[in-house]
Amino acid sequence: MTGMLAIAVARAGAELTAIDVAESRHDGLVVDVTCNCVDTEHTDAVARAIDDLTGVKVRVKSDRTFLLHLGGKLEVSAKVPLRHRDDLARAYTPGVARICQAIADRPEDVRRLTIKRNTVAVVTDGSAVLGLGNIGPAAALPVMEGKAALFKHFGGVDAWPVCLATQDVDQIVDTVRALAPVYGGINLEDIAAPRCFEVERRLRDTLDIPVFHDDQHGTAIVVIAALTNALRLVRKDIAEVKLVISGAGAAGHAVIRLLLTCGARNLIVFDRDGAIYEGRDGMDEHVKWIAANTNANRFAESLSQGLVDADVFIGVSAPAILQASDIARMSDSAIVFALANPDPEVDPVEASRHAAVVGTGRSDYANQINNVLAFPGLFRGLLDSGARKISDEMLMAAALAIANCVGADELNANYVIPSVFDSRVAQAVARVVREIA
Amino acid sequence: MTGMLAIAVARAGAELTAIDVAESRHDGLVVDVTCNCVDTEHTDAVARAIDDLTGVKVRVKSDRTFLLHLGGKLEVSAKVPLRHRDDLARAYTPGVARICQAIADRPEDVRRLTIKRNTVAVVTDGSAVLGLGNIGPAAALPVMEGKAALFKHFGGVDAWPVCLATQDVDQIVDTVRALAPVYGGINLEDIAAPRCFEVERRLRDTLDIPVFHDDQHGTAIVVIAALTNALRLVRKDIAEVKLVISGAGAAGHAVIRLLLTCGARNLIVFDRDGAIYEGRDGMDEHVKWIAANTNANRFAESLSQGLVDADVFIGVSAPAILQASDIARMSDSAIVFALANPDPEVDPVEASRHAAVVGTGRSDYANQINNVLAFPGLFRGLLDSGARKISDEMLMAAALAIANCVGADELNANYVIPSVFDSRVAQAVARVVREIA
Repeated sequence: MTGMLAIAVARAGAELTAIDVAESRHDGLVVDVTCNCVDTEHTDAVARAIDDLTGVKVRVKSDRTFLLHLGGKLEVSAKVPLRHRDDLARAYTPGVARICQAIADRPEDVRRLTIKRNTVAVVTDGSAVLGLGNIGPAAALPVMEGKAALFKHFGGVDAWPVCLATQDVDQIVDTVRALAPVYGGINLEDIAAPRCFEVERRLRDTLDIPVFHDDQHGTAIVVIAALTNALRLVRKDIAEVKLVISGAGAAGHAVIRLLLTCGARNLIVFDRDGAIYEGRDGMDEHVKWIAANTNANRFAESLSQGLVDADVFIGVSAPAILQASDIARMSDSAIVFALANPDPEVDPVEASRHAAVVGTGRSDYANQINNVLAFPGLFRGLLDSGARKISDEMLMAAALAIANCVGADELNANYVIPSVFDSRVAQAVARVVREIA
Repeated sequence: MTGMLAIAVARAGAELTAIDVAESRHDGLVVDVTCNCVDTEHTDAVARAIDDLTGVKVRVKSDRTFLLHLGGKLEVSAKVPLRHRDDLARAYTPGVARICQAIADRPEDVRRLTIKRNTVAVVTDGSAVLGLGNIGPAAALPVMEGKAALFKHFGGVDAWPVCLATQDVDQIVDTVRALAPVYGGINLEDIAAPRCFEVERRLRDTLDIPVFHDDQHGTAIVVIAALTNALRLVRKDIAEVKLVISGAGAAGHAVIRLLLTCGARNLIVFDRDGAIYEGRDGMDEHVKWIAANTNANRFAESLSQGLVDADVFIGVSAPAILQASDIARMSDSAIVFALANPDPEVDPVEASRHAAVVGTGRSDYANQINNVLAFPGLFRGLLDSGARKISDEMLMAAALAIANCVGADELNANYVIPSVFDSRVAQAVARVVREIA
């Protein structure tokens, strides 16, 4: 039978690496078949080939990625020993009572004597997870665990997933407010617009710890970082360039705000309904704000038309909405950041035939514009300084700190933003945030 | 100046171990003075002696216990590597999207593919913390961190502190319900009675994961475990003995319920207002339940009177409410469990002159009746089996499993309950819980 398994795997075009008998019984065997496949469709095809054998049934199929996530990606460990009575009496009762009393007497000591000092909640309602949409809190958990892993790896921050079984603004705000005592900061994640704006605003108004929506401000920081270096490279001034933004959701909104803070003056923003201009029908308050602060000439034609003579395109919207010919009509030395994930607004290889600098959110092209460059260092700085608020000044300083991690001698069209594995970045961001705080 | 410090410390009666210069400036030194003191009053006296020196100011004083708690006692770590692109692509985007989609498609897979499988929330509102009372959520955090450390050390369970900035039943229930998706179980902790009863009942009714109030059921389990062995030792039958309980709060209530499940028939319970009997004035629903199920003869005299000829006293109430003479009036081979912490209902040394078996909650006397014998193994078993509910059968089985960790050849008046450091206990408890689940 194992011979038949080997033949079936080979016929399905996969490379067999092992057949392990996991369980042997009177009436049959349980066998682990390990083989290399090309992609998930291939895996499915191999499983079907095995299942089609007479007397064989595939019970479970898994792959390296699934195996990595098995049982979750985080663990909670004690930093204190519990070897004997004396340890127990200090870490727990009766010794811990003195620590509790000290905090009851001086509430500000909670940052000194508990995990609050180094702990951030990664909060989601599961309503806008990656490109998957509204998949709910349980299905969002693997992302929040991954985020927490990145927080620890890049920033030394202890982050904990908070996946909420509610998508009601009042309930989200009440819940986060109720659980805030344990945390030194709140990182909102994958909450759909426009709900995310109100959740963030109300939490910022009521909590005494910093609240940060990474999909908004994390994205804005890294976009400004990359844009700063790209403009240096093509020797253009942010106050002089024409910028076209596609996407007015959480990310778009924050990018626009930070671009204006940077001194950008000529912006045209497009959403699903086309160009955003004052007086357009059916705009909510967030889109109205964009209309009031951009597109002074009330340009109302298509995105493709809007790109004519534009110096910068920033896409935080949807896959494949532009052709290479659209990029060709941009000005000389154009900058294109097409950040829709996993499929960018325009094919980056095509775009780079016409633009001077092209960046995406993907790791398999140059200039990966990834939030992991911002949030670990930002929260490291906030926690270290015991900051209660996040200011636009901090976001700007973080962006410049990231940009400045690319040396003048290193800067080129394929390297306007440092690698996500550059460990200096988080330190540099943390330093400027601490200074401002 | 350092010589003067050494003299001041010696004169205050402490043993100097080190003087370290932490900072040297033009206008002075910052010095760390380390010395051994007897207790906190002594520490204060040493600090005052140093502060009284001319030109010297004590900036911070700390001790081993405080130093242990500095920065908190827990950390969150990634179980997956993040060394390079390939790791990042599997643990986070884009690989994680497949895991999310798998859970969205088959919600039950959340236990297989996330931390939910091994994670418990330790939830408090800070309203009844140790003997300190209502000190609030932030001051309760050191206890919850300690509890989480015990969960990991004794049960391999990843536990996370949830300290709520509300003491309203509706808000507690709503908050725990909202954050439940991440957890495989809820451990309620240090929530005042009678609020704790309603919180537990409502959470059990709505959640699909087990909810356990440790102050109630954890205490009940270990009391029944110790009582089982103590009765074996004195050769008495639970159905025949007279039991007197002091305390009708969270712990008392749960102990009484489990005693009745065990077959106890002759119980008299006392609270602040004396004996509890049917028809007594001013009882809430929880006390009424006790009245309806105990004290059939409507005994209404004092606790001291109630102890006459009693076989068992269980105190889960207040310090030093009994004298040795009260214990002397109990029956032959009396059993006394005086669990008020840190000061028991009766002096255990005095009590042991008259009783056959004496137990307390303290580690410095024999027979320490401590919840840590119960909760780590109980949740280990619940998580391993994916149980959705906790049954009385599980609580009883856990109690017997703990009792049976004391072998027939080991059982004696000073050893009716295993040591909290006996690693077999959690395994034995987990095993029986898994079997029942």
